[in-house]
Amino acid sequence: MSEKFTVEMPVRFRDLDPLNHVNNAVYVSYLESARVAYVEEVFESSLSDISFVVANLEISYERPITMDDDPVIVLWTTDLGTSSCTMAYEIRVDGDVAATAETVMVCTDLETGRPTPIPDSVRERVQAYDDLE
Amino acid sequence: MSEKFTVEMPVRFRDLDPLNHVNNAVYVSYLESARVAYVEEVFESSLSDISFVVANLEISYERPITMDDDPVIVLWTTDLGTSSCTMAYEIRVDGDVAATAETVMVCTDLETGRPTPIPDSVRERVQAYDDLE
Amino acid sequence: MSEKFTVEMPVRFRDLDPLNHVNNAVYVSYLESARVAYVEEVFESSLSDISFVVANLEISYERPITMDDDPVIVLWTTDLGTSSCTMAYEIRVDGDVAATAETVMVCTDLETGRPTPIPDSVRERVQAYDDLE
Amino acid sequence: MSEKFTVEMPVRFRDLDPLNHVNNAVYVSYLESARVAYVEEVFESSLSDISFVVANLEISYERPITMDDDPVIVLWTTDLGTSSCTMAYEIRVDGDVAATAETVMVCTDLETGRPTPIPDSVRERVQAYDDLE
Repeated sequence: MSEKFTVEMPVRFRDLDPLNHVNNAVYVSYLESARVAYVEEVFESSLSDISFVVANLEISYERPITMDDDPVIVLWTTDLGTSSCTMAYEIRVDGDVAATAETVMVCTDLETGRPTPIPDSVRERVQAYDDLE
Repeated sequence: MSEKFTVEMPVRFRDLDPLNHVNNAVYVSYLESARVAYVEEVFESSLSDISFVVANLEISYERPITMDDDPVIVLWTTDLGTSSCTMAYEIRVDGDVAATAETVMVCTDLETGRPTPIPDSVRERVQAYDDLE
Repeated sequence: MSEKFTVEMPVRFRDLDPLNHVNNAVYVSYLESARVAYVEEVFESSLSDISFVVANLEISYERPITMDDDPVIVLWTTDLGTSSCTMAYEIRVDGDVAATAETVMVCTDLETGRPTPIPDSVRERVQAYDDLE
Repeated sequence: MSEKFTVEMPVRFRDLDPLNHVNNAVYVSYLESARVAYVEEVFESSLSDISFVVANLEISYERPITMDDDPVIVLWTTDLGTSSCTMAYEIRVDGDVAATAETVMVCTDLETGRPTPIPDSVRERVQAYDDLE
C-alpha cells in the first residue's frame, strides 16, 4: 500500500491575521500548493492543454495554526469521474488534524474552457498511486 | 422586507493567478471582507471580547472572475444556534452568480478560546435584519 | 493642468497582520493595482505584446493603515527613458500621507523577455497626462 | 567569520501572477518571513514589548522567479543606530541573485507606538552575528 502524498508547508508571517493565527483563506492556498505538487508528481503528464479547475471546496477548521507550527498537507484522490476528480486533504500539525477538506476539480480544456475527459494515462497513475478502484 | 447586505469588492491585480482569473483562495478573502463589514454593521455591537471564528466553509465556483469584472458579495444569516451562526453568500458579477458559499461560524470567547453563547442583542439584530425566525 | 491619477483602495480584512495594521507587503499590491489602472487608462493602448515590469521599488512607510481607513493611491509618471518609466506614488488617508513610493519599470517585449522602446503613442499620452516634458 | 543568515522559501502557486512569475509584492513577503526568522534567532530576546517596524524598503528585481525555482533569502544587518536597524537581503535562486533589497526598521515601543532605543542585549547579539563594528 502506498503512502499518502504529503507536502510540508512552512508558515509565513504574511499568513497570519490580527488574531495571530493563519487566516482561514490561507488554508485554501495551502491546499492548492499541495495539489499543484501532487498533480505534477502523480499525474506526471504533460498537461499543457488541460487544467484541473476547482468547482467545489469544503473545509472544516479544527484548530488554529500559529507561526510556531510546522503544518504538513496530506492529500489523496477519492473519486474519479469522467471529467471530474475528488480529492481529500488533511492539514496536520504535530500529528493533530488542524483542518480537513475536500475539493471537486473539473478537467478543463484550456482552449475551450469546457470540461474534457480525464486522460487515461492520468487516470491510471492516480488509481495506482492512491489505490483507487 | 429588508434588502440583503451587499458589499462591492473591486478586483486587484494581485487577486489573479496564472490562468488570469481571480484565484480560488481569494474568493474566500472576498467572503471574509464582506462578513467583517456585515458583523460591524448588522451586529452593531461592541464585540471586543468575542469573535466569530469560521468552523466550516463550503464554496461552489460557478464561473471565473477577471480583472474587468465588478464583483459584489451578497450575504445573509440563515441560521442562529446557541453559539453558532450560519451564513450564506453569493458572489455576483453583472447579475450572474460567480460563486455561492456557506460558512458556519462559532461565537468564541477571545480570552478562553472556547465557544460562548451569541449575545441576545446580536441575535435580535440579526433576526430583524435578515427576517430570521 | 491635469489632476493626478487617483485610485480608491478599500482595505480588506486579509490585508491586516498581527499588529492589526495593513501589512507592509500589501502596500506594494496597492501600488500595483493603482498602476494597472493607470496603464489601462492613461496609456490607453493595446499592450498585448509588451508589459511594464518592475525593476526597482522604493517605499517609505509614514504611518500605519487600519481597517477603518479609506486609502487612496495617487500616482504619476516622473520620467520616461527610452524603455524605462519612473512613477511616483502617494498613499493618502484622510489627506495625510501614509506612504510615498517610486517604481522604475522597464518596457518589456513579452515574447523575448527583453527591454523594448516605449511606443511613441504611449509616450505622448503619458507626457500629456502628467505634464511631462 | 560567521555565515550569513539564510532561509529557504518554497514558492507557492498563490505567489504567481498572470505572467507566471512570483509577483513583485510577494518578494516583500519573502523578505519579511526571513526577517522574522532572523529576529527570533539572532536577537534571541523576549521582544514582547517592542517591535521592529519597517520604515523604508528598497528592492531591485534582477530576474523572475518561477514555480520551479527554490529561492533562498540571505540577510544581514548592515547598520545599527540608536533605535534604527538597516538590513540587506539577497534573494538567490541556484546561486544567481534574483533580487537585492534593503530595509530600515525602527525599534518601536508597542504600547506608545513611538521609537525606543534598541536594547543592548539585542545590539550585542546582532554585532556578534554579523561582524558589525
